[in-house]
Amino acid sequence: MKIDAVDFFYFAMPEVTTAADGSQDALVVRVSAGGYVGWGECEAAPLPTIAAFVCPMSHGACRPVSASVLGHALDGPEDIDAISRLVARDSMDLLQAQHTLSGIEMALWDILGKARSEPVWKLLGYQRSEAKIPYASLLFGDTPQETLERAKKARSDGFSAAKFGWGPIGTTSAQDDADQFVAAREGLGTDGWLMVDVGQIFAEDVDAAAARLPALEKVKAHWFEEPFYGSSYEAYAALGARGSSVRTAGGEAAHNLAMARHVMDIGKVGFVQIDCGRIGGIGPAKIVADLAGARGITYVNHTFTTHLALSASLQPYAGVARDRICEYPADPSALAQAIATNPILRDANGEIRAPEAPGLGIDVDLVRLKPYLVDTEISVKGQVLYRTPAI
Amino acid sequence: MKIDAVDFFYFAMPEVTTAADGSQDALVVRVSAGGYVGWGECEAAPLPTIAAFVCPMSHGACRPVSASVLGHALDGPEDIDAISRLVARDSMDLLQAQHTLSGIEMALWDILGKARSEPVWKLLGYQRSEAKIPYASLLFGDTPQETLERAKKARSDGFSAAKFGWGPIGTTSAQDDADQFVAAREGLGTDGWLMVDVGQIFAEDVDAAAARLPALEKVKAHWFEEPFYGSSYEAYAALGARGSSVRTAGGEAAHNLAMARHVMDIGKVGFVQIDCGRIGGIGPAKIVADLAGARGITYVNHTFTTHLALSASLQPYAGVARDRICEYPADPSALAQAIATNPILRDANGEIRAPEAPGLGIDVDLVRLKPYLVDTEISVKGQVLYRTPAI
Repeated sequence: MKIDAVDFFYFAMPEVTTAADGSQDALVVRVSAGGYVGWGECEAAPLPTIAAFVCPMSHGACRPVSASVLGHALDGPEDIDAISRLVARDSMDLLQAQHTLSGIEMALWDILGKARSEPVWKLLGYQRSEAKIPYASLLFGDTPQETLERAKKARSDGFSAAKFGWGPIGTTSAQDDADQFVAAREGLGTDGWLMVDVGQIFAEDVDAAAARLPALEKVKAHWFEEPFYGSSYEAYAALGARGSSVRTAGGEAAHNLAMARHVMDIGKVGFVQIDCGRIGGIGPAKIVADLAGARGITYVNHTFTTHLALSASLQPYAGVARDRICEYPADPSALAQAIATNPILRDANGEIRAPEAPGLGIDVDLVRLKPYLVDTEISVKGQVLYRTPAI
Repeated sequence: MKIDAVDFFYFAMPEVTTAADGSQDALVVRVSAGGYVGWGECEAAPLPTIAAFVCPMSHGACRPVSASVLGHALDGPEDIDAISRLVARDSMDLLQAQHTLSGIEMALWDILGKARSEPVWKLLGYQRSEAKIPYASLLFGDTPQETLERAKKARSDGFSAAKFGWGPIGTTSAQDDADQFVAAREGLGTDGWLMVDVGQIFAEDVDAAAARLPALEKVKAHWFEEPFYGSSYEAYAALGARGSSVRTAGGEAAHNLAMARHVMDIGKVGFVQIDCGRIGGIGPAKIVADLAGARGITYVNHTFTTHLALSASLQPYAGVARDRICEYPADPSALAQAIATNPILRDANGEIRAPEAPGLGIDVDLVRLKPYLVDTEISVKGQVLYRTPAI
């Protein structure tokens, strides 16, 4: 097969707010090769990500992603790897390139799976798709009362695991934060898995983050996610060295394999969280899952958008029975819900699995998405380099 | 003062080739505040970098860079730092944001310097601008003979230091590379400073890089630059541990302070190379210069474009007498030459200094640049978000 076409579709809700809700827009990629169509999604700002595909070359090490993808052979996983290496080298100086590649790479796996009538996780070497406990990924309320209600709702919606993130945490006192943690635990019940995500709020301030540990221990938080900037591995290590029973989680910002390695080996996290829509796709994420296993670190997906992204993010550790929980967009936008006609639903046990269907196993219905399409046009020297494809 | 306007100008040579010559295009930024005009330059792919400034918000942690800059106060260095922190937080998920910010941040320093009638290096706390030995930054020829001629020309052009980079190095045998190194040394003369840059060609293959060390030692190379991917700190450390007298150099890919720290503390480089057009501007680069000094690591600028970028890249270590050499674009494109009406020229000793004039001390003449202007337009939902400003 040869890669014939790559099309980007930029979707957004009519109104996008400053809430930390990553499902308010989506950049979906459609790739065509050998008569097959594959789908992927970049977890990225749509406009710069499209620009990184179509931009004119700046020099030999700053070429658009399109130069490494269009027309390339696609006959096996080794071709996907070759494309990724090509982008790493020829788009070395184009920072956004890895986010652009990520969605394309997923779509390439989707095509390979469809061509071989096998799910992607099988192509990755797994024998079966293990059941995962989905955790509802939610935002803290503005008040503990709101958080309590959200936690109760998650529980009544059948989630035995929930992660609360962002909101006011870290912006006032450690006591205020403790009140929020207690509310989350109370709403979820004593037997639920409770995770806490503070969205890099402490920058590199280890003491400020450490001041939250006693309250997190008290509510038996399963992890303490992203206290610091994504690359501040030293701060992660320093917090870990305080010896709390609550281990850190991080890695979602990793936009290459080396960064994921660092968050494990230097940051000493207990949980490594990988977003296939950022790290360069499914291939590098699978390597991280292998490395995590060898280090006794728990691998978890990072997914706050659609079920297309969810399927992609489950593949790298679909066959790892030991790593039980997975992030599950519990309350995504209408747009995110519209993307997959066959979403990944919870079974009678409240668990989910990466699909058994070929490729990523997610059907994308563009017609349902038409109302969310964001008309975009980029032209350089009077030539249209990108125009939103017709649906 | 308040930041009133930010304008991006995308310039390019009529023909852009796959040569590793970063001066084939340029993204110049003009910022207006309080009646002053400041200039900066992003060392980045122009189109995605502009897109990261104007793109619609995706969510609270994925806002365009413009949201953190336009209308912000600018009364002192603390405001520049505040803007950088705002971008780090509110554009956390927008990978290209740091490249966009870099050029803007330089322009903010330029404005502050002009407003206070002081060069930027003085605002950074230095008492004087020390003389630096400029090294001609050149590319290896396709053959050793070509390299020999280029080295001879650099010498006859008055350069006592030269760096050769890229070309065929690493693509064939260690012996072929050795022939190139010998040619460079022969052309430059036994007393010249010779640096070698292999542009990440060995990915993470430490043995392949180490196979080049004996030849580099033989020609007394001053450093061995970027044998590996920018974030592959473990590979840098492993190569350093081989104990060669030729130390590694790296860091140009750093797009935040943490990455520069890692290349020093984990990668154990002997030379840290910072591009102010990538790392987020002059402020974080100055912190790297301080950290390097404390560690006994030599700080060097990375500059392969214009004299505007050169001035910006000299500021962070302008007052550090110990760090003697600096990268100097010896053979830039006609476009890069046209940017500054008052370039930074070598004195009678063949040395250069960061300018004494207020701000960055570089006058940009847009009229001379008009022939290189790349007309660009980006529109979303029928609204023009960016159109090349008139000159």
